[in-house]
Amino acid sequence: MFRSFMQDALDQAREAAEAGEVPVGAVISRRGQIVARARNRMVELGDPTAHAEMLAIRTACDELGSPRLTGCALWVTLEPCAMCAGAIAAARIDRLHFAASDPKSGGVVHGARVLSQPQAHHICEIHEGARADDASALLRAFFAARR
Amino acid sequence: MFRSFMQDALDQAREAAEAGEVPVGAVISRRGQIVARARNRMVELGDPTAHAEMLAIRTACDELGSPRLTGCALWVTLEPCAMCAGAIAAARIDRLHFAASDPKSGGVVHGARVLSQPQAHHICEIHEGARADDASALLRAFFAARR
Repeated sequence: MFRSFMQDALDQAREAAEAGEVPVGAVISRRGQIVARARNRMVELGDPTAHAEMLAIRTACDELGSPRLTGCALWVTLEPCAMCAGAIAAARIDRLHFAASDPKSGGVVHGARVLSQPQAHHICEIHEGARADDASALLRAFFAARR
Repeated sequence: MFRSFMQDALDQAREAAEAGEVPVGAVISRRGQIVARARNRMVELGDPTAHAEMLAIRTACDELGSPRLTGCALWVTLEPCAMCAGAIAAARIDRLHFAASDPKSGGVVHGARVLSQPQAHHICEIHEGARADDASALLRAFFAARR
């Protein structure tokens, strides 16, 4: 049965919610295989940089034994912030797929637009919107329950 | 004898160069005391996110037992990239002091200008230029030796 990488990222987001973390999940794929899965762990680790994307990038570099993730795609349930977008560029990830867009804190198609700066020495394809409704529903339910 | 925090950051940068890493060092201070020191460790850790600032932020959060570095200042020898600028905002650091500016990869006063976006939910004071000549000299010597 076909299972999309974004579905795996959504499963990670759901796990994050169950652990009391803002539900964002990420997956890194290479040649059709998943090389890293991660979810937000800011609360658990007491680390403001422990976003799903950052952890997935570090895991994938470990897994592949390289600080360059050329040939890899990152699938994440929410538009990355400026920090994570910068990490995507630093890791030379070829393709970014994000589900929900984030006008408040996103740094890819909003705000700092880190991957679209003329300065960028790396070209990353950007794909937006796949499973956006599912990703947003997870976030809405999480914040509604905390109010 | 007065010793500036930027001098400590420069010492970290020098250590990075000796270890074969791009010479950038960072220090985080709070109420006049250093709470974290770090230098680039990208090569050592095989991790493209292991910039001095990222490691200093994670160390300071550990040290202070908080994911918020309110009341802290970050001293770094080179203008932070977009990733590190995003981490500075995520950690709620109050003040950033950087030495050399980085037109090519900087994300504070160049490129994405992450800390100056209208979107930013956090105000970080930016101070530029202290010990810029010393920080640039370290970088120039490092890259000249590798050519």
